[in-house]
Amino acid sequence: MKNIKLTIEYDGTDYFGWQRQLNKRTIQEEIEDALYVLTKEKINLIASGRTDSGVHAKKQIANFKTNSKIPSDKFAYALNSILPKDISIVESVEADINFHARFDAVSKKYRYIIYNSKTRTGLYNRYSYHVPYKLDIEKMKEFLQLLEGTHDFIGFMSTNSDVKDTVRTIYKIELIKKENMIFIDIEGNGFLYNMVRIIVGTAIDIGRGKITDNIVDILESKDRKKLGQTATSQGLFLEWVKYSK
Amino acid sequence: MKNIKLTIEYDGTDYFGWQRQLNKRTIQEEIEDALYVLTKEKINLIASGRTDSGVHAKKQIANFKTNSKIPSDKFAYALNSILPKDISIVESVEADINFHARFDAVSKKYRYIIYNSKTRTGLYNRYSYHVPYKLDIEKMKEFLQLLEGTHDFIGFMSTNSDVKDTVRTIYKIELIKKENMIFIDIEGNGFLYNMVRIIVGTAIDIGRGKITDNIVDILESKDRKKLGQTATSQGLFLEWVKYSK
Repeated sequence: MKNIKLTIEYDGTDYFGWQRQLNKRTIQEEIEDALYVLTKEKINLIASGRTDSGVHAKKQIANFKTNSKIPSDKFAYALNSILPKDISIVESVEADINFHARFDAVSKKYRYIIYNSKTRTGLYNRYSYHVPYKLDIEKMKEFLQLLEGTHDFIGFMSTNSDVKDTVRTIYKIELIKKENMIFIDIEGNGFLYNMVRIIVGTAIDIGRGKITDNIVDILESKDRKKLGQTATSQGLFLEWVKYSK
Repeated sequence: MKNIKLTIEYDGTDYFGWQRQLNKRTIQEEIEDALYVLTKEKINLIASGRTDSGVHAKKQIANFKTNSKIPSDKFAYALNSILPKDISIVESVEADINFHARFDAVSKKYRYIIYNSKTRTGLYNRYSYHVPYKLDIEKMKEFLQLLEGTHDFIGFMSTNSDVKDTVRTIYKIELIKKENMIFIDIEGNGFLYNMVRIIVGTAIDIGRGKITDNIVDILESKDRKKLGQTATSQGLFLEWVKYSK
């Protein structure tokens, strides 16, 4: 029995997210089905975490156990020959038998791309969220900076989540503006449901002057209703996942 | 009568290029049809030049004449509300009545994106050409450098073109490598049919060691058969067009 670690890149546009669901096209299902073709085993693929419908990934990590004789590094090529074009196995390697893509993850980085221009984009629809308003970048940075460190992020969680421990640590948060594009990069030890998209949505609402209350007060209130919209999924990328070992 | 200049961004993936053709979906047709909806005029839209099937554009320029009362700068928003998502009018402005998007163009820049990795990409399929071979970047640069200046590019023309004057000037050519991505940027006063894609294809064949003949000899032979493949269209972007006035 071997434990194989996959590095996976995908365009989430045409999928209902990572997790297998009845009658819906998902990344997990596509890869598990391709693994079945190769190994004839009913494989349970474990990802570092789910990604939502429409969210993309540059280096999602997943692992699975198999008795297949296929060499570990050849799984990437074999799977790519079966998978649809918008999913790619960047690398496949043998991992320690105890490696667990979800439990062993120590940090993750997400990137959100805002296309900030009066007119929409023809080229980057799939990969960005169009914001036509003028944005005050300095105010957005000020707000984002306050989120670094360990905080109770309960206000930044979708109300339909029932997670109990809502304390998370954001190691680094950065806003980079390049012409019409605004990149918001967030690295942390874990993220609540929709947390990145609520952070970005709030940053946008602050930047366009829709939220004018004192930012520190808003954060201390821990009230979802005082924060901004949940930014749409197509601008969100899981960049990478770090492991201790 | 007004002359309107459009700046157009498009994802060429799902189109048979710029130019209107019977029973084929093209960029020109989509925009002319949208202009008809707005103005009820049968408008002839003139672009800086055609782009081939699958080729993208960041700032294609086109112009058209109209008697419409729609303010010049509002055409962008009005057209975007009708056009499919993968075509965007970035800007519309009134131009001099004699402005001609094709005849007045003095230079153009194209970018070609190569995705150079053993495994394919899941995210950038539409926007890059996957080359799995190891490439000798220095050799590619050496070849590209030789193309700068004024030369007879007859060897770099698709054999089914009947253009007579095949002398063109390349002002600048640059290769930039960033992780798995290789960008080849070419700025010139004009380009023959498939010229950029043959230049890139030849650079790739030199980089992977498929073409080993002396480069200067190949260029002096002016022989299409001694050059490389025509690189596929999905990696090609028309970046911008410059005008003297």
